[in-house]
Amino acid sequence: MIIITRPDITDDELDHLRERIEAAGLHTHLSRGEHRTIIGCIGDETKLMELPLRSIPGVESVMPVLKPYKLASREFTVNRTLVRVGANAVIGGKEIAIIAGPCSVENRSMIMETATAVRRAGASILRGGAFKPRSSPYSFQGLGKEALKLLVETRAETGLPVVTEVLDTRDVDLVAEHADMLQVGARNMQNYALLAELGRVQRPVLLKRGLSGTISELLMSAEYIMAHGNHQVVLCERGIRTYERATRNTLDVSAIPVLKRETHLPVIVDPSHAGGDAALVAPLAFAAIAAGADGLIIEVHPKPENALSDGDQSLDFNAFIALMARIPAFAVAAERSFAPHSQLAEAREFTGAAVA
Amino acid sequence: MIIITRPDITDDELDHLRERIEAAGLHTHLSRGEHRTIIGCIGDETKLMELPLRSIPGVESVMPVLKPYKLASREFTVNRTLVRVGANAVIGGKEIAIIAGPCSVENRSMIMETATAVRRAGASILRGGAFKPRSSPYSFQGLGKEALKLLVETRAETGLPVVTEVLDTRDVDLVAEHADMLQVGARNMQNYALLAELGRVQRPVLLKRGLSGTISELLMSAEYIMAHGNHQVVLCERGIRTYERATRNTLDVSAIPVLKRETHLPVIVDPSHAGGDAALVAPLAFAAIAAGADGLIIEVHPKPENALSDGDQSLDFNAFIALMARIPAFAVAAERSFAPHSQLAEAREFTGAAVA
Amino acid sequence: MIIITRPDITDDELDHLRERIEAAGLHTHLSRGEHRTIIGCIGDETKLMELPLRSIPGVESVMPVLKPYKLASREFTVNRTLVRVGANAVIGGKEIAIIAGPCSVENRSMIMETATAVRRAGASILRGGAFKPRSSPYSFQGLGKEALKLLVETRAETGLPVVTEVLDTRDVDLVAEHADMLQVGARNMQNYALLAELGRVQRPVLLKRGLSGTISELLMSAEYIMAHGNHQVVLCERGIRTYERATRNTLDVSAIPVLKRETHLPVIVDPSHAGGDAALVAPLAFAAIAAGADGLIIEVHPKPENALSDGDQSLDFNAFIALMARIPAFAVAAERSFAPHSQLAEAREFTGAAVA
Amino acid sequence: MIIITRPDITDDELDHLRERIEAAGLHTHLSRGEHRTIIGCIGDETKLMELPLRSIPGVESVMPVLKPYKLASREFTVNRTLVRVGANAVIGGKEIAIIAGPCSVENRSMIMETATAVRRAGASILRGGAFKPRSSPYSFQGLGKEALKLLVETRAETGLPVVTEVLDTRDVDLVAEHADMLQVGARNMQNYALLAELGRVQRPVLLKRGLSGTISELLMSAEYIMAHGNHQVVLCERGIRTYERATRNTLDVSAIPVLKRETHLPVIVDPSHAGGDAALVAPLAFAAIAAGADGLIIEVHPKPENALSDGDQSLDFNAFIALMARIPAFAVAAERSFAPHSQLAEAREFTGAAVA
Repeated sequence: MIIITRPDITDDELDHLRERIEAAGLHTHLSRGEHRTIIGCIGDETKLMELPLRSIPGVESVMPVLKPYKLASREFTVNRTLVRVGANAVIGGKEIAIIAGPCSVENRSMIMETATAVRRAGASILRGGAFKPRSSPYSFQGLGKEALKLLVETRAETGLPVVTEVLDTRDVDLVAEHADMLQVGARNMQNYALLAELGRVQRPVLLKRGLSGTISELLMSAEYIMAHGNHQVVLCERGIRTYERATRNTLDVSAIPVLKRETHLPVIVDPSHAGGDAALVAPLAFAAIAAGADGLIIEVHPKPENALSDGDQSLDFNAFIALMARIPAFAVAAERSFAPHSQLAEAREFTGAAVA
Repeated sequence: MIIITRPDITDDELDHLRERIEAAGLHTHLSRGEHRTIIGCIGDETKLMELPLRSIPGVESVMPVLKPYKLASREFTVNRTLVRVGANAVIGGKEIAIIAGPCSVENRSMIMETATAVRRAGASILRGGAFKPRSSPYSFQGLGKEALKLLVETRAETGLPVVTEVLDTRDVDLVAEHADMLQVGARNMQNYALLAELGRVQRPVLLKRGLSGTISELLMSAEYIMAHGNHQVVLCERGIRTYERATRNTLDVSAIPVLKRETHLPVIVDPSHAGGDAALVAPLAFAAIAAGADGLIIEVHPKPENALSDGDQSLDFNAFIALMARIPAFAVAAERSFAPHSQLAEAREFTGAAVA
Repeated sequence: MIIITRPDITDDELDHLRERIEAAGLHTHLSRGEHRTIIGCIGDETKLMELPLRSIPGVESVMPVLKPYKLASREFTVNRTLVRVGANAVIGGKEIAIIAGPCSVENRSMIMETATAVRRAGASILRGGAFKPRSSPYSFQGLGKEALKLLVETRAETGLPVVTEVLDTRDVDLVAEHADMLQVGARNMQNYALLAELGRVQRPVLLKRGLSGTISELLMSAEYIMAHGNHQVVLCERGIRTYERATRNTLDVSAIPVLKRETHLPVIVDPSHAGGDAALVAPLAFAAIAAGADGLIIEVHPKPENALSDGDQSLDFNAFIALMARIPAFAVAAERSFAPHSQLAEAREFTGAAVA
Repeated sequence: MIIITRPDITDDELDHLRERIEAAGLHTHLSRGEHRTIIGCIGDETKLMELPLRSIPGVESVMPVLKPYKLASREFTVNRTLVRVGANAVIGGKEIAIIAGPCSVENRSMIMETATAVRRAGASILRGGAFKPRSSPYSFQGLGKEALKLLVETRAETGLPVVTEVLDTRDVDLVAEHADMLQVGARNMQNYALLAELGRVQRPVLLKRGLSGTISELLMSAEYIMAHGNHQVVLCERGIRTYERATRNTLDVSAIPVLKRETHLPVIVDPSHAGGDAALVAPLAFAAIAAGADGLIIEVHPKPENALSDGDQSLDFNAFIALMARIPAFAVAAERSFAPHSQLAEAREFTGAAVA
């Protein structure tokens, strides 16, 4: 921690300030400049983070030296984390991982049909909402427990592990019993009660960046889950809220290389929510891979104009197949790989064994 | 709902589009312009909100005519809502309401001392955190249930009703048993599971605007609570996230008159979180009243530099008293009133009877 | 300047870094912490601002200690600047200054009629656009030189000094010959060629904050004008661009107290452009005064629905009179004064002598 | 234009509103819904854009049907525009165009050395600043006219056409005499005096998106140049200002496909300014190509730590060569091409003939 003092700080104030820092167990080191004295605080900076240093008389500004996250940081964990989802999918390796499926599980036939289609096109994980966070209380809220059962059936049939969102601390165990990965939605990125609960389960977590979450806050939310015991976290950039209105959100493609530098956790991108428009999914998906993303999560629906939620941004099967056909070239350019067929061959052997 | 079609829409596409709208129970009305056909949809617009109209071929853009909120809207409820907190505090009337107290309840003596000081200075409701949402899992998380008990004791002693935040659906009943008003923090504005649960309790709710919540989304979150049965909602503007870094957040003072036009619910302002700086609390508080706010919520601590949370933005007793001394003149200028003494006289009679 | 090094910096890199800093004439002072070495740079920090320190191997981050502005800073100029506009108006004193008038000068009768009305209601300076920055090349661009002549005539008739915008370096002399104060519009806040040119004239400058200008950048733009010789600068907060769409811009009311702390220059507010809506002008104007603004600039038109520009946000005479009637109470609450009649009495004596 | 009326509009107000619209030469077409009447305005919408419709009594909201730009729109010009720069460079064709060079021209040897290096690595156009917009009046402002001469010499030596920024309407002719393409910097995107002047020259214009410019405003600024006679405009996305602080700006990669849909003008990306960090240039450059950009503009300096401006984000020669080596694979994946050698072969023949 570095503290810059006001030009008019008194000797008594400076003494008091140093006492407060030293009482927290750190040493102080002064540099007296022309206009300001700078105090370097040597020792365990986390102890100072709790102190309201700016409220101490004579303090002008306070600058942390270390990042507030540790478990999520590449500084302390050099090797990249591989997150295994179900029996045969992996996120964070050389292979690009594709998660696809409908916004919501609407009924048995549509989830089965979609899972079959996305698996054939090369997806290795199925997405499908059971509990839906909707901005209107009058909108379709998802099929809930019934949808969880349908996801289990679909996995048994197709061999695809499933990811689904959990909204309520009371549902965490239920969802963990059914799904292979638990999703935290953008609106819950800082729902700390939920994050703490997810730290206690033995399932990987897909953590979406909040609409106005900073990269640092996203990492702190990952730290929250990890500090409670669960280190299997995948980060997801899904567009941030800016002044621009031509797209629903602004995909922060720069977040990908920044996150890869800051953390050992895998980073995927959701081009469906980022643009909010089916026509933008492919270019944003390609940009994500080019920038170094470990995977994509894409909304696919048998007939988007009939979708009960997110139809505007869902791809139909043909559009998804066309997109997938172009992934290998971008994966190669990005010095990654994407070989859906070998994965599928492997996946087929494991059918039904995804959650043992 | 108004639908604007693409210039190249075919007759078949136009027919299909009209069929979809009419199947939802609305009538269509066409205006053919030089470049575009416009379809006016007459009838219950909420039925169309569920349809992914932009994904239907030939559609260029879609514009709702009605606001998505009804219970929260002034269009359907003309009289302004008065929210009663405890036995003797009211938010939303002519009188400016002041909520004050520490960020967190740290121990018995500090909450008692602070409550006594803010009551004497003219506050009519006490704030104090029991469960704290902290961005770091390593920070002080609040005293929890122990703090709730201390708030009850403090109310018995001072007569001030209490508001405290609830973070977890599992804690709603517990908090409702102890507090007079339940707060939804900014990070939980779109935690729909929590909002639904708060719709079921018999306590007023203080709903804070999210860091990047729009005014419309804030009203939809209020609608969520109201649609589940609880119409006692107070809205709180607390600063939004913008590109400006000189202040922690940007107080959206324009939101006050916009909300007063759109909704019958009371609107208060939190100048402590908006600026994140004790020196900004007074000017922002005055601006809020000038713009038409119904009240303020202010962080006060016996000694901010010792606070376990939010010390940088907390006022000490003297600063709070100085601020309060200037409220009456702004209240009068804003054609409101503020007479702490009469309230206090009344409050004293009710001491201990706030939650019967 | 404080430099934080990477954990893996080599001794050679550290030596090279120190040499670069010392070559610029500063001393270095090292604090070795557990994970990072911190280098305090003692001496004239402006010399380091030109160096791309982050590109030097081993550097992790760089933090300036001093603000980049000097002439605009309160640290170096303790007394507040009073800006005199024409013969008898002053901005920055105890008295709240009101600038009012139409967006554009449309013709002789409307500018004369408006000037008379706003003077009667208590305004002390007339605004009126001659050269208009319009986002469309097909929109009304202002009457140009003709409008400047009409402003001179109106001043002669009413005694009100005039402020008008200048868009082009080639027009600076022309505008300075006719107007009492020159306005830099929001879109030109960082048009450095224009700022430099305005530094060379003997007229006060009204500098509007850019749509996404930070407070620090606004002060740097003022510094630009001042460094070129003109110290008569008035800053104007006029709303910033955020994600919120309910208002055209978001009035950054916090900028007022922050600017008053950082600079000795006067600070006024434009509630017309901030909200973009006539109904919001009064509450935003009151909030601005409550937060400590030195004045307001308000758009007034004889019949807004006929205005050639900005009609949506212009007040008609009655609305302006109603607003003005409420200013004194807010001025008093803010410990300022507003006595339009005494000003007017004085103004009348000076009629026609504003620019001798 | 579609007008939605208030629920309480009177018949007289409705009549008055229709008269205003019809007086502008359009027809009105009414749809009466349950709560609102909708007025479709049929005819030349541009005539209504000038009317302050929202200020007419009874109007609730106003929605344009057409985009405000015409010359820049793909709706009216189906074929994509190819912009020729100098004798042999083209932007907007199948081939990815790479512009590279230093932020500022610092002296003869560095610009010559850099031009030679970037040409060899495959760039087809040289960038180099002569007039620099700097936020501080105390920073290096560029060599001005001297730099223009050095650019001409460098072009003669290397055959690379040159692009450089113009800041002042008074310099437009001078810069146009020396350079092959004129750049409008982000801070001047809405400097309408400059845009109008650039509409009158016979040189292509590189128009950068403003820090908070919307996609629609960028297109309106292009329209401004085009409406004044110059249709050779290249658009440049260079990052927008958002709340995120981990990068200097946020590259709006979604703007690329949106612009390609809206306009026939070429779209390039500046990954150097977007991230403000040399380490981010490559991933952002690759993402831009993947999303469909027609080219890139990249800052390159012989020794970034000695650069007089933008050293933090400049690549050295080796980093630029490494980046360029990876472009072909991304170009192929994006169904574009990039064959620097054939271009160079062609370029060499034209050496010295770039501006005849």
